[in-house]
Amino acid sequence: MKFSIERAALLKAVSQAQSVVERRNTIPILANVLIEADGSDVSFRATDLDIEVVDKVAAQVERAGATTVSATLLHEIVRKLPDGALINLTADTAAGRLTVEAGRSNFSLATLPREDFPVMASSEYASNFTAPAPVLRRLFDKSKFAISTEETRYYLNGVYLHIADVEGGKALRCVATDGHRLARIDAEMPEGAAEMPGVIVPRKTVGELRKLLDDDEMEIAVSVSETKVRFATPGITLTSKVIDGTFPDYTRVIPQGNTRKMEVDAADFARAVDRVATVSSERSRAVKLQLDEDRLVLSVNAPDSGAAEEELAVAYGDERLEIGFNAKYLLEIASQVDRENAVFLFNSSGDPTLMREGNDTSAVYVVMPMRV
Amino acid sequence: MKFSIERAALLKAVSQAQSVVERRNTIPILANVLIEADGSDVSFRATDLDIEVVDKVAAQVERAGATTVSATLLHEIVRKLPDGALINLTADTAAGRLTVEAGRSNFSLATLPREDFPVMASSEYASNFTAPAPVLRRLFDKSKFAISTEETRYYLNGVYLHIADVEGGKALRCVATDGHRLARIDAEMPEGAAEMPGVIVPRKTVGELRKLLDDDEMEIAVSVSETKVRFATPGITLTSKVIDGTFPDYTRVIPQGNTRKMEVDAADFARAVDRVATVSSERSRAVKLQLDEDRLVLSVNAPDSGAAEEELAVAYGDERLEIGFNAKYLLEIASQVDRENAVFLFNSSGDPTLMREGNDTSAVYVVMPMRV
Repeated sequence: MKFSIERAALLKAVSQAQSVVERRNTIPILANVLIEADGSDVSFRATDLDIEVVDKVAAQVERAGATTVSATLLHEIVRKLPDGALINLTADTAAGRLTVEAGRSNFSLATLPREDFPVMASSEYASNFTAPAPVLRRLFDKSKFAISTEETRYYLNGVYLHIADVEGGKALRCVATDGHRLARIDAEMPEGAAEMPGVIVPRKTVGELRKLLDDDEMEIAVSVSETKVRFATPGITLTSKVIDGTFPDYTRVIPQGNTRKMEVDAADFARAVDRVATVSSERSRAVKLQLDEDRLVLSVNAPDSGAAEEELAVAYGDERLEIGFNAKYLLEIASQVDRENAVFLFNSSGDPTLMREGNDTSAVYVVMPMRV
Repeated sequence: MKFSIERAALLKAVSQAQSVVERRNTIPILANVLIEADGSDVSFRATDLDIEVVDKVAAQVERAGATTVSATLLHEIVRKLPDGALINLTADTAAGRLTVEAGRSNFSLATLPREDFPVMASSEYASNFTAPAPVLRRLFDKSKFAISTEETRYYLNGVYLHIADVEGGKALRCVATDGHRLARIDAEMPEGAAEMPGVIVPRKTVGELRKLLDDDEMEIAVSVSETKVRFATPGITLTSKVIDGTFPDYTRVIPQGNTRKMEVDAADFARAVDRVATVSSERSRAVKLQLDEDRLVLSVNAPDSGAAEEELAVAYGDERLEIGFNAKYLLEIASQVDRENAVFLFNSSGDPTLMREGNDTSAVYVVMPMRV
């Protein structure tokens, strides 16, 4: 194998590869990236056995072939080479070395045979459709904060991507929850997605997927089976196993009868919550909300360090209400609001509270109260 | 005590205070900042019993008085208040509370009595002089990287500030070393400094002092005794105990007879060292330098991961030489060079090597070789 490639293109591919590779590996080959040169393309493949990412880049291929080399080491080297450099990569299979040359720099890296590299088995996908990058970005960005980190509830360690019935038809929906808060985000159902099986996309896959979604003009090809999900741009293909479990029936958690409505500037609200929470050093900082007509008082009382109180002008016309929440949860849902005011719908101080942006029901958040 | 103060001024003072306060305190009062309002000034005092910093700020004082409150908590609160806010602080000594008000935010913080706050005993200083901020900045910035972190060699855990004999007179000098490398930085001796006792300024003090030295126009008042050192601007006074120990006779470590001279672009050199060191995953990465006429080859050989080699054009006219160094040490001294080429003076592959900027002998670095 022998080819030349521009530094920027190589850096991008190797950077994606090394982020999939796990830092600590008991199986040496899993630390490596599989480099395959053929025709006028070079592909870079990395896997942790659950996720596989393949990045195909144009290069001047002089001799076809393949080898595997440490992903982090190659990434570090390419990162440190000067911008604009042309890099030559040559595999010496007999010696088990990959030579990386650029200008007066010369590296000779240990390789492992391509045959040892575990390539993910190809699958039949039940459903194939395309979706614009900004649509997928919104679905996952607005829901991922609610993913559970409790390993025992493995079926909550991801985002539940599925097709849901909504008023007037069907939607492509992402739901995540950790039992304390929940995010439910809807987008228009893409053509051909109606039969998609619901799948739980693992947290790490959501993170890797995010890197494919920066380009607003990009159409992402999505393929879903019962066990795998695949996202592809013309250059990059990300394949991931999905979590083998059943996502709980979240619809019962979303309150339907909450009528006490408060509307507030989301940024002002978030800043005020952040400030009053400062006085409490506990991990689960409880913030008390006291609602009167058009007036919200946020307060925290920490016996050791002190007390804090802040008043906000809000739109509220219902009867007096006191309710407590974990400050972190309030901050996180408030920071999801990017266009309009945050609208909170309360029932009583013991019931889950609902939040959305203005009158938009395509992004809905639920947060459980805390006793204060 | 009652006063009003602009957020930016308060943030600056409290930020300096909380950085002196240790994160984990067994003595509760040491987590606090002592706030004293009197006349038209408010002073903020913090200490860890080794360092004391006092920041005096103009404020609208309505009622004189003093109290102490958690430095980190006050800092967090002020940081989160909106820019430009006017902040009112009122101490209620009977209730043991400090009220912090700004706009519609209201905080009531637990206090401890001012009487419990340990104020550092005042001292007689043997020597008092002033030095421009940029002069002190250079002395400490260029030497501090070489401070030892070995607690057993506590007398190396700081920068040795003293007066030294140099060609044509005396100099104000900073020296730091960890036994593997050494930095010796000279500046013109300020008037009145001739009798200054040599003192070892602890690492943390060097860090805190750095914050006083950003303003190029500032003259810093320096006072030194056998046990303490003080640095003061019109607003801020930093007092610190010095390390109670004897700094070793460093002059014997600085080679006098090194004649084999190599001149190299410092930035190119540092980047090349950084690149070749990538292939070694060991903590002490050894880089081999091979010198021939006007040609330097840097190389690293790591049996597990591979090898790296890089060639640099240098000015060198002596006989062939091979010498090894710790890559980190080479990188650190090379990055001290900011104006000219780095000049290395070698003797043999087993002897300490000297580095300086061009022909300037006011900043000299020594680094021990490694067998490669």
